[in-house]
Parts: sequence; C-alpha cells; structure tokens
Amino acid sequence: MVMNSEKLIFVTNDDGYQSKGFAAAIEVARKFGRVVAVAPERAQSGMSQAITMYNPVYLKKVRDEEGVEVYSLSGTPVDCAKMAFDYLFEGRIPDLVISGINHGSNAAVNVLYSGTMGAAIEGSFYGCPSVGLSVTSHDPDADFTAAVHYGEQIIRSVVEGGVPTPLCLNVNVPDIPFEEVRGVKVCRQTRGYWREEFYSRQDPHNRQYFWLTGGFCNAEPDAEDTDEWALAHGYVSVVPVQVDMTDYAKMDALNTVLKH
Amino acid sequence: MVMNSEKLIFVTNDDGYQSKGFAAAIEVARKFGRVVAVAPERAQSGMSQAITMYNPVYLKKVRDEEGVEVYSLSGTPVDCAKMAFDYLFEGRIPDLVISGINHGSNAAVNVLYSGTMGAAIEGSFYGCPSVGLSVTSHDPDADFTAAVHYGEQIIRSVVEGGVPTPLCLNVNVPDIPFEEVRGVKVCRQTRGYWREEFYSRQDPHNRQYFWLTGGFCNAEPDAEDTDEWALAHGYVSVVPVQVDMTDYAKMDALNTVLKH
Repeated sequence: MVMNSEKLIFVTNDDGYQSKGFAAAIEVARKFGRVVAVAPERAQSGMSQAITMYNPVYLKKVRDEEGVEVYSLSGTPVDCAKMAFDYLFEGRIPDLVISGINHGSNAAVNVLYSGTMGAAIEGSFYGCPSVGLSVTSHDPDADFTAAVHYGEQIIRSVVEGGVPTPLCLNVNVPDIPFEEVRGVKVCRQTRGYWREEFYSRQDPHNRQYFWLTGGFCNAEPDAEDTDEWALAHGYVSVVPVQVDMTDYAKMDALNTVLKH
Repeated sequence: MVMNSEKLIFVTNDDGYQSKGFAAAIEVARKFGRVVAVAPERAQSGMSQAITMYNPVYLKKVRDEEGVEVYSLSGTPVDCAKMAFDYLFEGRIPDLVISGINHGSNAAVNVLYSGTMGAAIEGSFYGCPSVGLSVTSHDPDADFTAAVHYGEQIIRSVVEGGVPTPLCLNVNVPDIPFEEVRGVKVCRQTRGYWREEFYSRQDPHNRQYFWLTGGFCNAEPDAEDTDEWALAHGYVSVVPVQVDMTDYAKMDALNTVLKH
C-alpha cells in the first residue's frame, strides 16, 4: 500500500506566492501527500495560458519544511507548472495538481483568460488529475471556508473514484456563507463573452491612459446546466475541461466553400 | 450594393506593430475594405488570451492614410482587440478580423498559447468572421508569399460563401516555397503537448536563470485529418476554432463519483 506521504502534489496559483489563496491551496494539498508548490513572484491574474518566451526566469525557494516546499518564479502561472514538471520533478509525474485558490470567478469564458486555469490545463497535459479552484470574490481577505471544504471533497471523490485522465476540473465556489452552499453541481461552460468599458483619464504627464473594466454578457442566463446558473443559485460548479478547440460543426461548411 | 470601401476590417498581430507580418496582414485586409489595425508596442508571442488588468494601457496612432489607420497599444493582443471593438469602433462591428501574419506555427495545442489566436478568438466573440494567419517559420524575414495568397483566398471563400458566425479560423501555412504548396486542407487540432527543457546559465550577477525551450510531442503523428499532418505534407491547414472547453465525455463519470 502506498503511504499518503509518498504521494506528490503540485500546487500553483495566479495571485502570487504571497496570496492567501495559495496558502489555503497548500493546506488542502497537504492532506493528500507531499507538496511542491511554485507560484509567480507577482500577481498574474488574466495571464491565461501565457508563457515567458523573451526573458529568462528566476526560481527561488521561499519555504522548506516537512512535507512542503514552496518556490516563487518570476514568470507566469503556466511557466510555474512547466518549471515544476520539466525541471524540479526530473520526470516524475505528480499524483495531483491544484491551482488556486483563485480570488475571482473562473466560470464561463473566464476559463480562457484565467492564469489559474491556464496552469491547471498545463498540469493536466502530464497525465495527472488537475483541479483549478476559485471563489467568486475578489476580496484579498475572501472567506475560503467553503472552497477548502468542497475543494477537498471534490478532489477526494475524483482521486478515489478513479475518473480517467486526462482530467482537468474548473471548480468555482459562490461567495456566500458556507452554510448556505447547496452542494456541488457538474456543469458545462456558459456561453457568453466580456464587453469592456475603458476607463480613461489623463496621467500626471498629460497622456491619456485606458484601464480595462467590463462585464460578462451571459448568452444563456436561464440554462440550468451551466456553471453561471449553478453559482447564481448557491452551488459549487464543477466543469470538466478539455483542450480540443476544433469547431467540428463548421467542418462541412468549410469544406464546401474552400473546394471552390 | 455595399461598396468594398465601406466594409470595415480589423487587423491585429502578436509580433508587434513594426513586424513584417503585421504589414503583410494589412495589405491582405485592404483588399476587403477600410482597415483599422491595432497591434502591441512590443512582441507578445506566447501571450495567449492574456489581458492587462493591473496597468493602464496607452494607445498611439502610428499611421493614417486613405483606407488604413494603424495604432500601437502598450498591451496584449487581446487588449488590442478589446480596444478596437469597445472603444475605437464605438459599437460598430467590423465585417472581418485578421490576426497575423504570425511568425511561427499556431497549429495543434499552440492555439492555447498563441497571442495571434487569442486575439482572433476575442474578435470572433463580437460576431464577425475572424481569421488567425500564421507561417511555420520563425524567421523575422520569413517569406509570406504563400500566406498572403492562401490567406486572401481562404478569407474570400469564407466571406463570400457565407459560413455562419461565430466563426474563427486557425490558418497555418507551411514554410516551403509557394509553388510546392499542395493546397488547403480543413483539419482538426492535433492532440499533443509541449515538453520543455530549461536552458540554464549564470547571469553576470551569479544568479542562475532559466530560459524556456522545448518541443511539441505529437500524440497522433499519423492522423491524416490533423493540422500537424497537413503542414508536414505541404498543405495549408485550416482549423475552425470554438471556445466551449467543456469535456462532455467526463460528465457522467463525474456525476457518479461526486454523488457519493
């Protein structure tokens, strides 16, 4: 029998190695085995699947104690995953990846922009179960009680239940008191997109600057099988994520017009 | 009849507003209507769907002539698309988006990391046909003859053929002489992922740095319906792209394990 302590768990985050959510994710991960955690030096929200191509990156060990090693990296969340899998682990594949706990929702199309989900997706490429965990509050002091409780429960169910890999989960927890959470709901990604409003001012040098700010346009607010609906109705949403973005439904039409 | 000159074409790029590929894409776009082009100030390859959340961005008009306006933006490729659609166009939806011409392949899983495809996907959210166009050469002086020829041909076929939106195409052109290109092939995204090797050295301050370098592991090199196969066999690959990343095949297994 494999001892719990022999399992290797990789943890990362996009809010940076000093964020409260990263510390919370490490505590969840410790329940499953030995933890190696790598997070960006600075907050990297909205970094998507970005990688650092034009600069070198620096790795620094910031914590080393029984069962937990933590590093900071001067790169993106996906850089952190690559650094762990392709350098630190020397070819060993961990038993589990946890990315988070993210401050802010990664439901719906946010999965495309999210550094948390970028790193979770990257982790899933290596063949271990990978879970991105987020709360829908942007408060740096957000209450992680529900995220920790349901995150651990979902991870345990998936690991013990033997759901086949590749497996990547986008788990979002509503920003409501723990006792009001109605349970866990397996969902699909909501259709919709972000429309932006650019907040614009003059800087002290009289140059006009713009700051991105916007809102999500939900294309199907009444669809009860979507992650946005689940969150709005008090459920923890679980969306399994895969990376084949081919729009198969368009192939016939394209073949027809491109033959001429 | 709508005059050609009345159509509005948005062009962006991830190699920056001074890149040869951006200029080539603008020339392709001019054949379809009036061009408004916004590209990053600096090269932004590998930026994926990243957005700038923690800094203001600056917009600068760098070229203004009959039928072509060009701007640089101190942001990511997706920021460029958002700035155009949500600020410059004041609500008008362009008739076409062209992102590229990118230096380097965006076939297979590269679609996830690519700033070119990030911007093309973003453009497709607004309901107009959107085309990401790449050549598989990283040479800054790459030969764009085939990309310009086939890019224009594919765009014309799609626009005139009335393929329904949302429509986003990931078009890649092999790095071979124009006369050797065997034609256009509609494909699906190849399965596989990148394994990295970290090039490591000491910097002048004796700190160890790492630089990302790696290779693509093709999980299905013999699959003739994939984009990697098409490119390796001299075809221009066309993959239609959509953004629902839900792994529907995993939902039953998840529902089973999460009910307990």
